[in-house]
Amino acid sequence: MRIYEIINKKKRGHELTAEEISFVIKGLGSIPDYQTSALLMAIFFQGMNAAETTALTMAMVDSGERVDLSSIEGITVDKHSTGGVGDKTTLIVIPIVAALGLPVAKMSGRGLGHTGGTVDKLESIPGFQTAIGGDEFLNIVKKHGLCVVGQSANLAPADKKLYALRDVTATVDSVPLIAASIMSKKIAAGAECILLDVKTGSGAFMKDLEGARELAKAMVDIGVGCGRKTAALITDMSAPLGRAVGNSLELKEVIQVLSNNESPKDLYEVCTALAANIVFLAGQGTIEECNKKVHDAITSGSALKKLADMVEAQGGDRTYIEDPSRFPLAPFIVEVTSPQKGYISEMDTEGIGLAGMDLGAGRETAEDKIDFSAGIILHAKTGDYVEKGQPLATLHTSRSASVETATKKFLNSLTFAEAPPPQRPMIYGNVGFGL
Amino acid sequence: MRIYEIINKKKRGHELTAEEISFVIKGLGSIPDYQTSALLMAIFFQGMNAAETTALTMAMVDSGERVDLSSIEGITVDKHSTGGVGDKTTLIVIPIVAALGLPVAKMSGRGLGHTGGTVDKLESIPGFQTAIGGDEFLNIVKKHGLCVVGQSANLAPADKKLYALRDVTATVDSVPLIAASIMSKKIAAGAECILLDVKTGSGAFMKDLEGARELAKAMVDIGVGCGRKTAALITDMSAPLGRAVGNSLELKEVIQVLSNNESPKDLYEVCTALAANIVFLAGQGTIEECNKKVHDAITSGSALKKLADMVEAQGGDRTYIEDPSRFPLAPFIVEVTSPQKGYISEMDTEGIGLAGMDLGAGRETAEDKIDFSAGIILHAKTGDYVEKGQPLATLHTSRSASVETATKKFLNSLTFAEAPPPQRPMIYGNVGFGL
Repeated sequence: MRIYEIINKKKRGHELTAEEISFVIKGLGSIPDYQTSALLMAIFFQGMNAAETTALTMAMVDSGERVDLSSIEGITVDKHSTGGVGDKTTLIVIPIVAALGLPVAKMSGRGLGHTGGTVDKLESIPGFQTAIGGDEFLNIVKKHGLCVVGQSANLAPADKKLYALRDVTATVDSVPLIAASIMSKKIAAGAECILLDVKTGSGAFMKDLEGARELAKAMVDIGVGCGRKTAALITDMSAPLGRAVGNSLELKEVIQVLSNNESPKDLYEVCTALAANIVFLAGQGTIEECNKKVHDAITSGSALKKLADMVEAQGGDRTYIEDPSRFPLAPFIVEVTSPQKGYISEMDTEGIGLAGMDLGAGRETAEDKIDFSAGIILHAKTGDYVEKGQPLATLHTSRSASVETATKKFLNSLTFAEAPPPQRPMIYGNVGFGL
Repeated sequence: MRIYEIINKKKRGHELTAEEISFVIKGLGSIPDYQTSALLMAIFFQGMNAAETTALTMAMVDSGERVDLSSIEGITVDKHSTGGVGDKTTLIVIPIVAALGLPVAKMSGRGLGHTGGTVDKLESIPGFQTAIGGDEFLNIVKKHGLCVVGQSANLAPADKKLYALRDVTATVDSVPLIAASIMSKKIAAGAECILLDVKTGSGAFMKDLEGARELAKAMVDIGVGCGRKTAALITDMSAPLGRAVGNSLELKEVIQVLSNNESPKDLYEVCTALAANIVFLAGQGTIEECNKKVHDAITSGSALKKLADMVEAQGGDRTYIEDPSRFPLAPFIVEVTSPQKGYISEMDTEGIGLAGMDLGAGRETAEDKIDFSAGIILHAKTGDYVEKGQPLATLHTSRSASVETATKKFLNSLTFAEAPPPQRPMIYGNVGFGL
């Protein structure tokens, strides 16, 4: 097999065989990078079909370890969000489904750039550990039904190598390559059922619905091709999800939703839909029945208890979950008021995420330290009418010098109009159900 | 300036600036090859406009030496053929235009694969030298009006580096990259007027007319962009040109045409058109006047004398030109007869070139030695009617063991039909005149 022929074949728009794809992935490092990068660019232009992305995913899975969940009783489930601002869905959804008897052995990432990460949010709880090894990870799942740890470097290491090359050759934004990259880690992580939350809108990687649908379809095809029950919801990220942006602020909002206490409507809708669809995917009844189970898990308090149990099992202080007022507040808390009256017609979600970064809530490079208490609480969102001088948001930070820039960035992210904008749905559709 | 941004810009289909292109060419070797190859693949898909290809050509010219022809009196001219089987046009055209007072300081390549090279053909004359240095090269042109030497490695060395990377990353067949590669050497070689002979058909690099026209236009745009009078003819290569394929066999056919002695019609038509258009491009009269001058240069014998003068000036034995029967014949001369009656409706020209290679007429790698006397004389070509058993060709070789394979390959290259094929023109059109 010759790499030249493989590049040429893809360049001409032909389908690569599983053997050819495996040859490339096994050869990473020994095949010259200049040939691999030419192939990546050809893939950017010619795409890959479901058979090819599945083969690519399997080849990357085969490059490393797999988590063996076979010793866990029950139907293991996983979820993945393509990320956004204020996206705390995982921390709401997985205690719900775990409370409903579906075990979740979750590996999660850290935040980078304008989007946050589940692991960072959890680490705002004193004592909480996310670097937990194989056996202990499985034991916590067996005992409590859920555990969230950091992404292991041993899963799909070829993906990391390939990503490093994509990162310097402008070939990151290729749907089949993104889909295979995400799915390689999901497949290696071992769950039987995988629900994908593909975001669309100004705060999402995929700004438009068409792109989001394409990515969702590519990932579902891979999951199904690898023998997993896989489906996706396409959800809105044209505004931050909920009202809180920033690690401990978001965790407090998670507790609010799981306590059924003044949950932001958008966040509640997305999380309960995700949870119900996981339960449905796992075959636990009709979608109506699954919806009811999910609401019951919240109102009964069983989901919140599940979260507290997990926090305790992972070395964290569960009293923070039971009494979220224990989370320390940032030293500077500043209100941003509206410079004009009118409807908020649009939010540049990425801009709000970047304002949060200025306040210390995110990282620019993987080495940066996060200020857990920093962030933004939104008092008005897209569609709301505000008077001039009405509070729009509260900024939380320990960097008083950054308040001015963050305020500017925040205000620049808002568009005002005289008439209310058309209402956007929170859930645009799904991919993979009924297949 | 960042290479990542340049790759990304081209990937998105935007025009690169001359500064960006120069940055890439100057950076060859220091910019990682994996980034350059990603850019090359992006160029393959997104193309380059005339400003970009001109900038690329100039950047490659600037990477090396230029031949300074300013000391030569008269309007210096050059021609370039994109190559084919039996393509001995250069050796017919340049003595004609030199005889008409247009100096030709020609750098030419060697044959590789199924196509031959001018330098190899000339070297079939005992004593003929093609490795001639700067001053002597110019002195021969000043004295005789023409000189043909091998391609200097000092012209556009960046093109060689870039080509080496294209060769292993399946990015050779990109029209803007081909055009810039060819033109960088033509521009560096210094002539004021450049006529391009772009071949189309089964023996050409560009198999279809549309591709040939695109390449012709790209090259003419570059030539004009670099301040040279440049034009192109698009000529037929759907059958070998003339009847001879192989080095000394072709040279004998050159002498036949310049002696006006039973010239093959197709070869005569293409060569006189090329010559007349060079003379026209150099402003020596109307195209009708130029045509007449060209025919006169042949019938008067002045062009043939020019060739003999050049051969002598370059150390060769001019009596071979004056008496071509002096060229030694190959030890094995075998007739191939027709397996059936009918019209030859099509010739796989590349296949015939490959049969010639089997006989020893070409090289597979740059290191191979050529057998000057080896080759094929065609007795029938596309459109001819043949009876079963009628001679189709004569094979010349010193490898008796290769005759069977070559015969098979040759016969496989022919398609027979009951009706005559539609006549194809020899010249499909031109690009760059009347601009």
